[in-house]
Amino acid sequence: MNASEFAHQLIEARILFPSGVRGVYGRSGLFERIVRGFGAIITKFAEDDGAEFVDFPPLVTRANFEKTDYARSFPQLMGSVHSFFGDDAHHERMLETLSAGEDWSTHLGKTELMLCPAACYPLYPTLRGTLPEAGKLVDLMGLVFRHEPSDDPARMQMFRQRENIRIGSEDDVREFRDRWLERGQAVLESLGLETRAEVANDPFFGEGGKMLAVSQRAQALKFELLYPIHSEDAPTAISSCNYHQDHFGRAYDIRLSDGSFAHTACVGFGVERVTLALFKKHGLVPADWPAHVRTALGLA
Amino acid sequence: MNASEFAHQLIEARILFPSGVRGVYGRSGLFERIVRGFGAIITKFAEDDGAEFVDFPPLVTRANFEKTDYARSFPQLMGSVHSFFGDDAHHERMLETLSAGEDWSTHLGKTELMLCPAACYPLYPTLRGTLPEAGKLVDLMGLVFRHEPSDDPARMQMFRQRENIRIGSEDDVREFRDRWLERGQAVLESLGLETRAEVANDPFFGEGGKMLAVSQRAQALKFELLYPIHSEDAPTAISSCNYHQDHFGRAYDIRLSDGSFAHTACVGFGVERVTLALFKKHGLVPADWPAHVRTALGLA
Repeated sequence: MNASEFAHQLIEARILFPSGVRGVYGRSGLFERIVRGFGAIITKFAEDDGAEFVDFPPLVTRANFEKTDYARSFPQLMGSVHSFFGDDAHHERMLETLSAGEDWSTHLGKTELMLCPAACYPLYPTLRGTLPEAGKLVDLMGLVFRHEPSDDPARMQMFRQRENIRIGSEDDVREFRDRWLERGQAVLESLGLETRAEVANDPFFGEGGKMLAVSQRAQALKFELLYPIHSEDAPTAISSCNYHQDHFGRAYDIRLSDGSFAHTACVGFGVERVTLALFKKHGLVPADWPAHVRTALGLA
Repeated sequence: MNASEFAHQLIEARILFPSGVRGVYGRSGLFERIVRGFGAIITKFAEDDGAEFVDFPPLVTRANFEKTDYARSFPQLMGSVHSFFGDDAHHERMLETLSAGEDWSTHLGKTELMLCPAACYPLYPTLRGTLPEAGKLVDLMGLVFRHEPSDDPARMQMFRQRENIRIGSEDDVREFRDRWLERGQAVLESLGLETRAEVANDPFFGEGGKMLAVSQRAQALKFELLYPIHSEDAPTAISSCNYHQDHFGRAYDIRLSDGSFAHTACVGFGVERVTLALFKKHGLVPADWPAHVRTALGLA
């Protein structure tokens, strides 16, 4: 089955509701119950680890965005928020452009905000300064935007990432990354999703991006857990672990108690992708899913 | 206490985390537990009413946005999503603009998406066609964007609206609106928040907007439940009921079984505002809140 056939099935079953733009869907109450059930499994681990929960709107300030490499690495994916700043006369001109069916967006100007490209981005700027001795461990769920219109329901333009983030020394964050990689695979397997862990790279832009991808792979900075939602040949990443070295520590001046820049790593689950993988594996009727999966997700 | 003093208290108490842009905050796990507790109260009513739950990302397609009056009525509040569509050479020019500290947003172009201005906006286009005899009743929680930077923590740029929406005949939706107006006031009172119901108007733009506001009030299309978060003189709307007549029915061709355009009304709770009102009323330490409030919110 290809990606758009699966989308069609989900729409027929009233699990997804199309918006008219590729990669933007409404979701049923049933879809959301599965999302919450999976979330509760992650919450349990995070609470046992002593993680602090924080929640952010899906926005990054333009000033903080400019301190990262995002505009260099992924310009094609970003979302910049623009609004109207004119007076009555300018407003009239914009409405005339709109009525004429022309591009009225040229009447808009940039706001101080960008859409959030990864759930942990709004966190780092709030950590400026010197961390406690043991560093920090944070649990969050964030909505992120990626401008990549697609017919694949597993490639939405806005989706949720459930992330745990470790901020500390290189050893701390590597240990955290390795622990979650194993744990994530076990959690998914307990739900019937057998994943394959692989070194991966981000979709860096343009000619220059090819080298960045090679370097990221060579350093094994990114691991993904892959599950064949549509095909065995091109499985989908339903979780990823990213080690950022001291990129965010330097960008936002986050220091360890010895004065050096903090290292960071995050583990993220693509919440919609995990849910879609469950529908693919067990069928479109959760009432018929295996009892242990229903129990684990709080559906029983 | 003025609005920014209250913000300062919430930040000191690590309930809100400032982002550097006015009206954009991170929120603590405690804040989110109160949000969930309030949400569960609304869920109970919605389920008892037989409402269908749907969830949308905070996006409206540009094509659907253009079918509403939003760009005419509230251009100053809208959020338009822009991204980068160029090649390697254009990318280099954009990065040079960024490095020079100049406005690099001029290198971006509009996407097919707008940020969602009200939680129910993404719903209506999915209802195109003829409704069942009894119409529709929908429960949803949506994140919305309003570009109105403010030091008032009760005026965030992105915030959640918990909405119930009735789509049906004029009588159906008026009955729904009146029922929820009473019910909303009772729910808030049970949490210690004594509100005042008032006819209200939206913040229509410019000179022409003044007439729209007068007309909206004259027809009593909008009611708000007001609570004095900062001052008795300028209380904050923590809930509102809006009767849209057949505006959305016409815009998206939603019909009743007799072929006429559907009427719509929504009742929305400003989730962050309700939570802030609770902090204002009962103090910054939920462990010390009255037992019946803690129980109602599932905190006990």
